[in-house]
Amino acid sequence: MAGENRAPVTVIGLGAMGQALAGAFLAAGHPTTVWNRTARKADALVARGAVRAGTPAEAVKAGDLVIVCVVDYQVSQAILDPPAAELAGRTLVNLTSDTPERAREAAVWAAEHGIDYLDGAIMVPTPVIGSPQALLLYSGSRTAYEAHEATLKALGGNGRYLGADHGIAPLYDLALLNVFYSSMAAMVHSLTMVGADGVTAEEFLPYIKQFFALLPGMADQVAHGIDTGSYPGDLGNLTMEAVGVDHIVEASESRNLDTGPIAAVRALMGRAIADGRGGDGFAAVTEVIRRAIG
Amino acid sequence: MAGENRAPVTVIGLGAMGQALAGAFLAAGHPTTVWNRTARKADALVARGAVRAGTPAEAVKAGDLVIVCVVDYQVSQAILDPPAAELAGRTLVNLTSDTPERAREAAVWAAEHGIDYLDGAIMVPTPVIGSPQALLLYSGSRTAYEAHEATLKALGGNGRYLGADHGIAPLYDLALLNVFYSSMAAMVHSLTMVGADGVTAEEFLPYIKQFFALLPGMADQVAHGIDTGSYPGDLGNLTMEAVGVDHIVEASESRNLDTGPIAAVRALMGRAIADGRGGDGFAAVTEVIRRAIG
Repeated sequence: MAGENRAPVTVIGLGAMGQALAGAFLAAGHPTTVWNRTARKADALVARGAVRAGTPAEAVKAGDLVIVCVVDYQVSQAILDPPAAELAGRTLVNLTSDTPERAREAAVWAAEHGIDYLDGAIMVPTPVIGSPQALLLYSGSRTAYEAHEATLKALGGNGRYLGADHGIAPLYDLALLNVFYSSMAAMVHSLTMVGADGVTAEEFLPYIKQFFALLPGMADQVAHGIDTGSYPGDLGNLTMEAVGVDHIVEASESRNLDTGPIAAVRALMGRAIADGRGGDGFAAVTEVIRRAIG
Repeated sequence: MAGENRAPVTVIGLGAMGQALAGAFLAAGHPTTVWNRTARKADALVARGAVRAGTPAEAVKAGDLVIVCVVDYQVSQAILDPPAAELAGRTLVNLTSDTPERAREAAVWAAEHGIDYLDGAIMVPTPVIGSPQALLLYSGSRTAYEAHEATLKALGGNGRYLGADHGIAPLYDLALLNVFYSSMAAMVHSLTMVGADGVTAEEFLPYIKQFFALLPGMADQVAHGIDTGSYPGDLGNLTMEAVGVDHIVEASESRNLDTGPIAAVRALMGRAIADGRGGDGFAAVTEVIRRAIG
């Protein structure tokens, strides 16, 4: 059997993502033990060769590598704290998405219990799990990452270790999701806006895509500005750009559309302008995103 | 001279963009007459062969094609209304950025004065003007567009005529700027957020770029959803996604960062969930972006 040479793994939490993770381990030939609060969610995996554990403690004891992927850390801690003694001496990889602060609290808990803890964040949707391009971010225990890197490759070929701070993988996760959902909301707003005047989303789509293609180039400039604290306004400055954003808000209101997100962007620009940064480029809003502590 | 076979053009408004437009006409060999309220802004163009007009009326009379590019339509109308009689029978291309509503008002004014009026929107920064890939959008008079298409190519090779409604080019402009500024603001927020924990923008940049690369693929799904009114949640639904967005807000607040734009996105998601769309995909927020009229 292909699985005989592969390290045994445990997957706790069998939502859509947990099932994809366990399925990827099975596909790669790893003996895979699974546990989920609602046991029937394991049925399809058991049919493919997974072992169904009766309790989290039983699941944990099946091997050296324990993966958990549930809705948040409150749930993962509720599942993992009772079998903490069984987890001692093993490696825990928590792929649950939550805040950096809670990952760091979990790291304190893991250290207290002798658990080698790696935090992780899955940056791709379920169908991409197991493919060479699937991006997964890890931070925390370097020994855990290095010991299990080959096994974790079964989940995605594009795994990155970001350092010893357990909070960094979740921080990257949230910062990337922020870009993703903000851009998605803007796209939906713009398609709704042109739709109000009879333009179909399909007609407008090629233009949206052309604009998305500009963003990587802008990212270079913005990143350089933020790292250096210098925001040259030679290709466009906040005062001029605010006129355009006012027009977006006005045209949205004329069409009876919600203006929440773009009005909040305009407010940031206004605060930067009020701080004397009207001649600076857009990236200068970083200075007012960082709130003054009163 | 190269210019002898080329149509004469007039450019009114010599901000950075107006100067780029006039410069592109000069480079293509068009006899170019310019006017700006502050006359010295024409100096560099005059040195390259442009003719400086003393008044807008004098500028308008220099040829059949009059381009205007100023800060908004209030300013363009203030400049163009006095010489309306001289504009009669000529073609006016207003490349000033403003709302669709004001472009439509200007179209009524132009029709009253016998001016063949094309509205336009410049979708690229000044250094790209004149290049084959420069995207310019036009709508309004089809006869004006067809008569001057070859001349307008001097401004950018990627000119698109979007139909007879003068408001459509500015609507596309604002909808694209909405995507652009919202995505830029999110990028700056995310770089500020990781920076709060000591990650440089340069380190985080490759990840941002990978996420931007996902957006065109998402755009296809979102556009299809909006055109069909169907938002499948099989790869992610609003209820699950809201948990992640809550974490972004929480982690931003922990770092003392402004949360305006992402909190406004979260509010839209919350309203869609409250409307029973928690199992739908993200594009369902279009239903709450369109405000109910009470």
